[in-house]
Amino acid sequence: MKLVCSKSNLLNGVQIVSKAVPNKTTMSILECILIDARGGNIKLIANDMELGIETLIEGNIVEKGLIALDAKIFLEIVRKLPDNDITIVTDSSYKTTITCEKAKFNIIGKSGDDFSYLPSIEKIDSIIVSQFTLKEVIRQTIFSISDNDSNKLMTGELFEINEDILKVVSLDGHRISIRKIGLKNFYMSKKVVVPGKTLSEISKILSGGMEEDVHIFFTDKHIVFEFESTTVVSRLIEGEYFKIDQMLSSDYETKVRINKKEFLNCIDRATLLVKEGDKKPIIINIIDGMMELKINSTVGSMNEEIDIDKKGKDIMIGFNPKFLIDALRVIDDEEIDIYLVNPKAPCFIRDVEEKYTYLILPVNFTTVN
Amino acid sequence: MKLVCSKSNLLNGVQIVSKAVPNKTTMSILECILIDARGGNIKLIANDMELGIETLIEGNIVEKGLIALDAKIFLEIVRKLPDNDITIVTDSSYKTTITCEKAKFNIIGKSGDDFSYLPSIEKIDSIIVSQFTLKEVIRQTIFSISDNDSNKLMTGELFEINEDILKVVSLDGHRISIRKIGLKNFYMSKKVVVPGKTLSEISKILSGGMEEDVHIFFTDKHIVFEFESTTVVSRLIEGEYFKIDQMLSSDYETKVRINKKEFLNCIDRATLLVKEGDKKPIIINIIDGMMELKINSTVGSMNEEIDIDKKGKDIMIGFNPKFLIDALRVIDDEEIDIYLVNPKAPCFIRDVEEKYTYLILPVNFTTVN
Repeated sequence: MKLVCSKSNLLNGVQIVSKAVPNKTTMSILECILIDARGGNIKLIANDMELGIETLIEGNIVEKGLIALDAKIFLEIVRKLPDNDITIVTDSSYKTTITCEKAKFNIIGKSGDDFSYLPSIEKIDSIIVSQFTLKEVIRQTIFSISDNDSNKLMTGELFEINEDILKVVSLDGHRISIRKIGLKNFYMSKKVVVPGKTLSEISKILSGGMEEDVHIFFTDKHIVFEFESTTVVSRLIEGEYFKIDQMLSSDYETKVRINKKEFLNCIDRATLLVKEGDKKPIIINIIDGMMELKINSTVGSMNEEIDIDKKGKDIMIGFNPKFLIDALRVIDDEEIDIYLVNPKAPCFIRDVEEKYTYLILPVNFTTVN
Repeated sequence: MKLVCSKSNLLNGVQIVSKAVPNKTTMSILECILIDARGGNIKLIANDMELGIETLIEGNIVEKGLIALDAKIFLEIVRKLPDNDITIVTDSSYKTTITCEKAKFNIIGKSGDDFSYLPSIEKIDSIIVSQFTLKEVIRQTIFSISDNDSNKLMTGELFEINEDILKVVSLDGHRISIRKIGLKNFYMSKKVVVPGKTLSEISKILSGGMEEDVHIFFTDKHIVFEFESTTVVSRLIEGEYFKIDQMLSSDYETKVRINKKEFLNCIDRATLLVKEGDKKPIIINIIDGMMELKINSTVGSMNEEIDIDKKGKDIMIGFNPKFLIDALRVIDDEEIDIYLVNPKAPCFIRDVEEKYTYLILPVNFTTVN
């Protein structure tokens, strides 16, 4: 194989597919990026058996061929070469020479024959969203998946399509994040659970442009994301997702309208008194026109008042401050509405159109003072 | 005690003195910052017994007093408070209330009586350099001190004054870094060894302005740096520094003029094949008009050629690439001169005026290929 391509094209491609290279594996072929230049184009592929990424790069194929190169070393070499044309030459014993200007690297590749290609997927069912929308919706929900494998479904996100609405849901047993996105077309109903890892890797690759589309295809076992010259194929998580509609309620006893930034900064200040691992709740006392926040820890205590607009009953309720912070950080609205029932029931942060809903369970607290 | 000062003044002061707060200590009073408002000004002090920092901040003293506050918590609180006036009030039981707008923190301080103040130093002998110069000279030499305590003198840097020249030297047994700075005045001869920790903390505090002066005072046991409203006092390392003049020689067999950036980028590329801890030398082969760099590792091999201007003999020599990189990174010249004798003798990178001299010992290598 012999091919020539610009450093910037090659680097971009290698960075994209590297996202599907596993950190730890017993199969050394999975640590490789496959360069497939057997056809008329240069294809880079990586695949950790759950998630596979393929991207086409521009370049000149002088001699067709195939080689698998260690992803980490290959990425480092390409990254550090001068900004000029890079030539990659392999011989029959997989010796690979990478040259750029006067720099010349020799590394030993692997036969591409052992490489596990991406599964071929019949691309029928698809929806279209912009890169911006997909990247945003991942950011706005990914924090509330569970990193504990004991319930596999909690490590993924529900993607549910109903007519022209895409609903994305994540939950970890303490909170639920829901985002609804309006689609340009109407689609068949669909419900899949996408692994959190797939989503976080994809969001690193997405440029996030408003004008660039992502085509998302679904099969029973897989989800495929296509954008620019890149195809991402991921297995789905099997099983039936949680029935979240039962957990949502639109009844409330107290409704609070508050400035999001003030609220967030205040919680952020309060948490500095709490050492990591120390599960101190922040206590929120809501009365007419005012919310008082209090935290007590071994280090000291803090309290602060924020002006609010309140409807309904007074309430005192405790929360894990991190859960409030996570939700508040991904809400763009300046003013938000919080709906509360009682100190044992979840609170809801949601907008009127329900484009976003964040449910957070309260925690018990003992009133000292 | 009661005082009021702006968040920005207080934060700046606390950040400065925090540099003298030890990470680990058995004496909890050393983890504190002392606020001394007994006189007409607000003084912040921290002291780890080796290094002490004192800074004055602007503010309004409503009630004179003294309190020691946990440095980490105090810094975090100040950092996260809104950008407005901060009020600090203490009572006789060291309970401290820090308020800003509607936020109110309560923490427990300590009596200032147990605090170890900075030693009082007779400030007679002093030199003046700009903040820029001091910050630069530390950056340009600090990397070649030893972090191994077995030879205490190697963990510090020599500051040697001779007439109107300040010479700063650091060495770790494999290399020597020397910088010479012209002073505006003539001074008495002086030779002290300053702890590396003191220098790296100071360089973080220095704004690095060309117009701002630093006054440096010397006593037998201490060095004092005074700039803006800050005083830094550090113990000196006792003992006689190494006789480096014996190690320096101006004889050479080969002189190479090379583009610094090309040389640095090339070594940087070569090192990507070397795993950390794996002591592979980079082999440099110098012939007329050309330097060839080679590295071989278990991962692969790399070679590259750079155009040079050579005088004297051909030579092949091996180096620890990190030592070359460290020196090259802090040299500003576009073209540098390298002086070599033989593959067992140190190489020198130095400018004609000897404002900088970097000595690096070569390493043995076995020529494969």
